[in-house]
Amino acid sequence: MKHVVIIGGGFGGLAAARALRKANVRITLLDRRNHHVFQPLLYQVATAALNPADIAYPIRGALRKQSNVRVLLADVRTIEPDNHKIILDDGELEYDFVIVATGATHSYFGKPWEPLAPGLKSVEDALEIRRRVLVAYEAAERESDPALQKEWLTFVVVGAGPTGVELAGALREIGVQTLAHDFRGIDPTSVRVILVEGKDRLLPTFAPKLSEAARKTLTKRKVDVRISAMVTDMDERGVTVSLGGATERIAARTVLWAAGVQASPLARSLGVPLDRAGRVIVEPDLSIPGHPDVFVIGDLAKMISDGTEVPGMAQGAIQSGRHAAAIIKGAARAPFRYRDKGSMAAIGRSQAVVQIKGVERAGFFAWLMWWVVHIALLISFRNRFAVMWQWIWSYATFQRGSRLITGPLPQLPKVTGIAHDGAPALPPPAEPVVLPQND
Amino acid sequence: MKHVVIIGGGFGGLAAARALRKANVRITLLDRRNHHVFQPLLYQVATAALNPADIAYPIRGALRKQSNVRVLLADVRTIEPDNHKIILDDGELEYDFVIVATGATHSYFGKPWEPLAPGLKSVEDALEIRRRVLVAYEAAERESDPALQKEWLTFVVVGAGPTGVELAGALREIGVQTLAHDFRGIDPTSVRVILVEGKDRLLPTFAPKLSEAARKTLTKRKVDVRISAMVTDMDERGVTVSLGGATERIAARTVLWAAGVQASPLARSLGVPLDRAGRVIVEPDLSIPGHPDVFVIGDLAKMISDGTEVPGMAQGAIQSGRHAAAIIKGAARAPFRYRDKGSMAAIGRSQAVVQIKGVERAGFFAWLMWWVVHIALLISFRNRFAVMWQWIWSYATFQRGSRLITGPLPQLPKVTGIAHDGAPALPPPAEPVVLPQND
Repeated sequence: MKHVVIIGGGFGGLAAARALRKANVRITLLDRRNHHVFQPLLYQVATAALNPADIAYPIRGALRKQSNVRVLLADVRTIEPDNHKIILDDGELEYDFVIVATGATHSYFGKPWEPLAPGLKSVEDALEIRRRVLVAYEAAERESDPALQKEWLTFVVVGAGPTGVELAGALREIGVQTLAHDFRGIDPTSVRVILVEGKDRLLPTFAPKLSEAARKTLTKRKVDVRISAMVTDMDERGVTVSLGGATERIAARTVLWAAGVQASPLARSLGVPLDRAGRVIVEPDLSIPGHPDVFVIGDLAKMISDGTEVPGMAQGAIQSGRHAAAIIKGAARAPFRYRDKGSMAAIGRSQAVVQIKGVERAGFFAWLMWWVVHIALLISFRNRFAVMWQWIWSYATFQRGSRLITGPLPQLPKVTGIAHDGAPALPPPAEPVVLPQND
Repeated sequence: MKHVVIIGGGFGGLAAARALRKANVRITLLDRRNHHVFQPLLYQVATAALNPADIAYPIRGALRKQSNVRVLLADVRTIEPDNHKIILDDGELEYDFVIVATGATHSYFGKPWEPLAPGLKSVEDALEIRRRVLVAYEAAERESDPALQKEWLTFVVVGAGPTGVELAGALREIGVQTLAHDFRGIDPTSVRVILVEGKDRLLPTFAPKLSEAARKTLTKRKVDVRISAMVTDMDERGVTVSLGGATERIAARTVLWAAGVQASPLARSLGVPLDRAGRVIVEPDLSIPGHPDVFVIGDLAKMISDGTEVPGMAQGAIQSGRHAAAIIKGAARAPFRYRDKGSMAAIGRSQAVVQIKGVERAGFFAWLMWWVVHIALLISFRNRFAVMWQWIWSYATFQRGSRLITGPLPQLPKVTGIAHDGAPALPPPAEPVVLPQND
């Protein structure tokens, strides 16, 4: 019986394993994490709206009933296509076919900014961002110097693709809605969120009309949008942004990175040509040159369908995983063809943009559609129910259910003298601040 | 206006702050974590049944509407009763009254066992235990030597108070029910759980009849119960247990500590007599000798009520917090009197023991009571609903919703050769294994 090894339990790897459900092969799925992550909602973990387990699911749980799959927790070091071998952190496996689906990681374009500006790819990343965002408010509350308070209450998001736009919208809401009444020495509604994008519009992969709708919504909600702007420098106290020849220093203690991705480093071990982002330039059938038994799928591959590049989204990963599985099951080695099922991005409460087969919509109904589609695509009944009720609860109460700071605390501002005079520095507003919902 | 500082946002500190709601004082509540933890359900986070945020709640969220309280994230280094000062990690505060409520931490009786056998007091502890338990199964699946597999599938719980009993029951259920179908190279239902207790019965603070009921239930569910047994040694591969003169070596890769607690080290800075567990021996009114403006409450204090010691449970902390608050509000300095509202412990699915005002019950109805009481005592509607629906879901499906391994992986067994032959090592049972429910 042929041995198929799948590396990575993301959208692509999991789709490939499931497509081989009835195949007469034995499958080993390797992942260095025990869980599949539903990445489109990861930003909601980072912004304290959802729990990690609401959008992550144990890989072996998802494949429990498929008896031809064995799941192993393992970190793959290299692949040796000539020897048909996979070298693990400790041990090795032989394969007849391998599907490499280890996806992408952050790219800082060669700058040493990773510790300063975390990106958002894993549950750990999301918890780190959540910790930094919540700690920033705590630090501001300890701080007595208004200028330094303002630094702590300034958040910069670099990159305005769907993740950047979603993060920026949610970051304003945390201050203006969720935390509005919770502090005595600061006014959380004064939170400043700056969204920096190098291209000349937000959501560059969407239709220009939707980019404009996203910009309008975010601007109305007082997110400071800077397009055609490049981050040229960064340190622990802020970023330097270059915009049309001028440079500006933004003092901010929290910077989040949603700008660049690069392929997982495993691609390099295959010994085949890569593109600039480190992705494997695959054959039309998704195998690699000279090794028809090695398939590379999803974000790790530069895939061309009908002359255009397949975008690095869940649908591309799922479809390419199924394509590779079909060939392993014995289908002809046809070129991979991507069917675009559309794309969508949320822009905070009640607003989203959606484009599906030429139809372009922005607004409240787009947001409802975003809501329904994301719940439907989650992996289990449990997670669908968990996300659904928490969204309804958050929508009704303006609260976020997962506001925990865990892990070690950073250095916080010195507490000087008497903390407060018994009255809040700012009288709390009687009702939650309601953001405009129809723009 | 008098300044009241409360150190610790646990059951005691939070109750004290709330009792001062209408007092003409300004309050600063200090905690080094941003969240209150509902400790009685922490073991359910450790055993992957609940999310951290389901049983933890932001302290400043809980006190949002109480405008005379300011909450600060801060680590208290020492208290200087003579100077009326509190020294923080960075900064200091003056007080007119201080309520010290920093609770207890694990005690390993002077042995260096903390890295080997984590205890369960914080969300971080619970996530570390969850990680170790889930990693043990993953390691067993990578292992090919049956003797080493067995080591990974052996769990030792030291200490059979409520936490130890609850952990032991849940650990068997994880293998026998939740993970039964999820592996190919091991049989999770063969999991061995050993509960070691130094005293001559389980749940020593409960009536002997309930101890016996707990022992019966756990034994029927194949938890290996060792009473009058002391752990005398421990390393990464297991524990040595001494039982009636004989010693036994138990090979086990996962050991959990539920045996001893000691008071938080802050007690030492007060310069007053402590008991053997490091607790402050307080005056009858809960102040400390010579300093009527310093109150010590909850687990940090050795409190005597009507000649007997107040147990270290949530009720004692809450009542003592209210007592201190009443004195600060101007009540006479009466001795603290503890009203025992009863105690209960769950013993896994469908079984619990309850004793309330002389009534002692074990079984299914005790478990329903345990269920209702714990949900009612949670801090918010959100958390009540989250725990309730997840319990119903877990009860119906035998699953646990929070099976994530996060953080760095330990060294795992070497993967040798071909992982499996396409068929599960053990055919998965058709239905979940149902444990006996009425004993």
